[in-house]
Amino acid sequence: MSHAPSRALEQRHRTIRERLTALQLDALVVTSLPNIVYLTNFIGSSAILVLTHDRVVFLTDFRYLTVVEESRGSQWECPDLELVRVEGSYDSALAAALAALPLHRVGFEAANLTVSRHAWLARALPHGAQSGAELVATDGIVEAAREIKDAYEIETLREGARRLSDVAKMVPSEVRVGRTEREVAHAIDARLLSAGFSRPAFDTIVAGGPNAALPHAHPGERRFVEGDLVVLDFGGVYDSYCVDLTRTVCVGKASARAREVYGAVLDAHDRAIAAVAPGRSRFDIDAAARDTLGRYGLADAFGHGTGHGLGIEVHEDPRITRRRTDIDTAREPVARGMIFTIEPGAYLPGWGGVRIEDDVLVTADGVEVLTSVPTQLFEI
Amino acid sequence: MSHAPSRALEQRHRTIRERLTALQLDALVVTSLPNIVYLTNFIGSSAILVLTHDRVVFLTDFRYLTVVEESRGSQWECPDLELVRVEGSYDSALAAALAALPLHRVGFEAANLTVSRHAWLARALPHGAQSGAELVATDGIVEAAREIKDAYEIETLREGARRLSDVAKMVPSEVRVGRTEREVAHAIDARLLSAGFSRPAFDTIVAGGPNAALPHAHPGERRFVEGDLVVLDFGGVYDSYCVDLTRTVCVGKASARAREVYGAVLDAHDRAIAAVAPGRSRFDIDAAARDTLGRYGLADAFGHGTGHGLGIEVHEDPRITRRRTDIDTAREPVARGMIFTIEPGAYLPGWGGVRIEDDVLVTADGVEVLTSVPTQLFEI
Repeated sequence: MSHAPSRALEQRHRTIRERLTALQLDALVVTSLPNIVYLTNFIGSSAILVLTHDRVVFLTDFRYLTVVEESRGSQWECPDLELVRVEGSYDSALAAALAALPLHRVGFEAANLTVSRHAWLARALPHGAQSGAELVATDGIVEAAREIKDAYEIETLREGARRLSDVAKMVPSEVRVGRTEREVAHAIDARLLSAGFSRPAFDTIVAGGPNAALPHAHPGERRFVEGDLVVLDFGGVYDSYCVDLTRTVCVGKASARAREVYGAVLDAHDRAIAAVAPGRSRFDIDAAARDTLGRYGLADAFGHGTGHGLGIEVHEDPRITRRRTDIDTAREPVARGMIFTIEPGAYLPGWGGVRIEDDVLVTADGVEVLTSVPTQLFEI
Repeated sequence: MSHAPSRALEQRHRTIRERLTALQLDALVVTSLPNIVYLTNFIGSSAILVLTHDRVVFLTDFRYLTVVEESRGSQWECPDLELVRVEGSYDSALAAALAALPLHRVGFEAANLTVSRHAWLARALPHGAQSGAELVATDGIVEAAREIKDAYEIETLREGARRLSDVAKMVPSEVRVGRTEREVAHAIDARLLSAGFSRPAFDTIVAGGPNAALPHAHPGERRFVEGDLVVLDFGGVYDSYCVDLTRTVCVGKASARAREVYGAVLDAHDRAIAAVAPGRSRFDIDAAARDTLGRYGLADAFGHGTGHGLGIEVHEDPRITRRRTDIDTAREPVARGMIFTIEPGAYLPGWGGVRIEDDVLVTADGVEVLTSVPTQLFEI
């Protein structure tokens, strides 16, 4: 398994510290595990990072001490990491660590700290005019940095997408009359592991016939029959980074309607990809897919967003969706270095559905499609 | 796939409503997904439940509408469920749903709502002396109910444990000189899927030789050599319920030291299980394991807790740990119907480690071990 080089971590710390300066914060308490992975290369289930302007205080427990110690001196060690062993609870250890640092305004991740943990922490911190630390809610500081992939991340995701494409090319051979969705899902999972993924990035979706009308169907015991459209949506985690791909195939000869719906979704897919370029609004990329489906009379059949960012999480920013001003306040234009899915679909209850998904990178002057699998309708 | 019968859901709703009455709350907003599974049988990635004294208002989006509609009339449909389709953001939909109900004191799950979502919701709710709804932080209402398994859950976990034991009996045959940890982990995952688990309950751990000293090691490219102790820790999700098991085997002949450490951990494991009975303090069960290891001079080698509850989550209450009064305020005595792991271990950096784990049910007068796999040291 590979990790980001120390140099990349250093640059990431610099980016976050610039944001802290702009927000007049002395430190950021990072409780989101994907954000911790991004800033330290730590792979484990429990840790807290306190990033100040000149220190990297890292709290973890007994289970992970050895693995952190062993990274010392490697090419991917986290620079300046000060390891604090958590003996009791993480929150107690965090309160003690904060009290020991000369901090006044301490940012916390409001989207990653629960009301109960925040209340406990606010009570536990020393108060007072001279020495008190004030907890300040912050919103998406590390997530915004993660939107723009660095060179290491682009290489990792490119390699993941290449391996996922190889898996995808073999997947149609698993689908045949009489096999169940569940059997095919297990076969895909096995292929993902053989291809070098550490695990599926999410529960693999295999949905045939009417089940294909459920965008997030669970693979079941239904057996494929002649004429089924089958949506196959799967992804893998490669060196901590997630890639994601969907193809829809037909068992036997496709009906005229199936070819029509497939063609509409493919047109939406192609137009959305063609709309990707640095500076373009992510809402416009979504509209390129949505308006296309609308022209085929399928506007109501497409209920989800056109895409989502890929990285340490399988769903992250940017969200390629309709404009939602009520809660979506993330930046609007896409930028060079962003990697996200393009995955329009059409779902017709009782009949079935189609989805086609690829992973794209925003380049200096346009788009690079990282996944590489034929998009024509495959009749098995 | 099976789900809890409607009757069981009804009883669960009753239990929660009794707690609401005691807390003088008009409703509970349930945002924790495992809690939503428990109260509705919903399997999906996004939903919010508002449980009032006489209504069950369920918010989900386009992706899951069909699956919810299709459960209607089945033996596991959620009683009284009113389906609300989320069109924009979940938080907007929740604010609208709450505003439409005659509620004053509305509990929310403080451990499952982030500071940012809470702040948004508090701003979005109607205020005012007459009509305003007040958000009240609650702590672990549904989690406490989930600690005590009902008949359906016990049967499901018993069947899961039986299947996991069958997998465990085959696992030693996968370990041999020259194979890598990663290869064995993949073989275990494949066996879990074949045994009817929908997925591994967590990332399978296969840690050989010095890696066995890392309680949560990631399976790597290290190849087994003669004399390695190998910790094999794996679990599966069976009909939404998680089971978990660990065995440690030796590649070839075990050294005297390996037999000694193994014997100490097995003694701790057996004594902890013998200490399980209704009314016993969970801290005393932990002490039964910990003190035993201490008598073998291995107190410092056992850094984690003795066990954790199993259910819809692979780690839930009760926690069988040392007493930690700073943040652990959950109930102390274990009770009939609780299901948890017993998994003492000893980890010696640079040398290796041993862990032995089984799943137990607290019965009316003692304990039933749900997993059933020989515990003597297996020399391959």
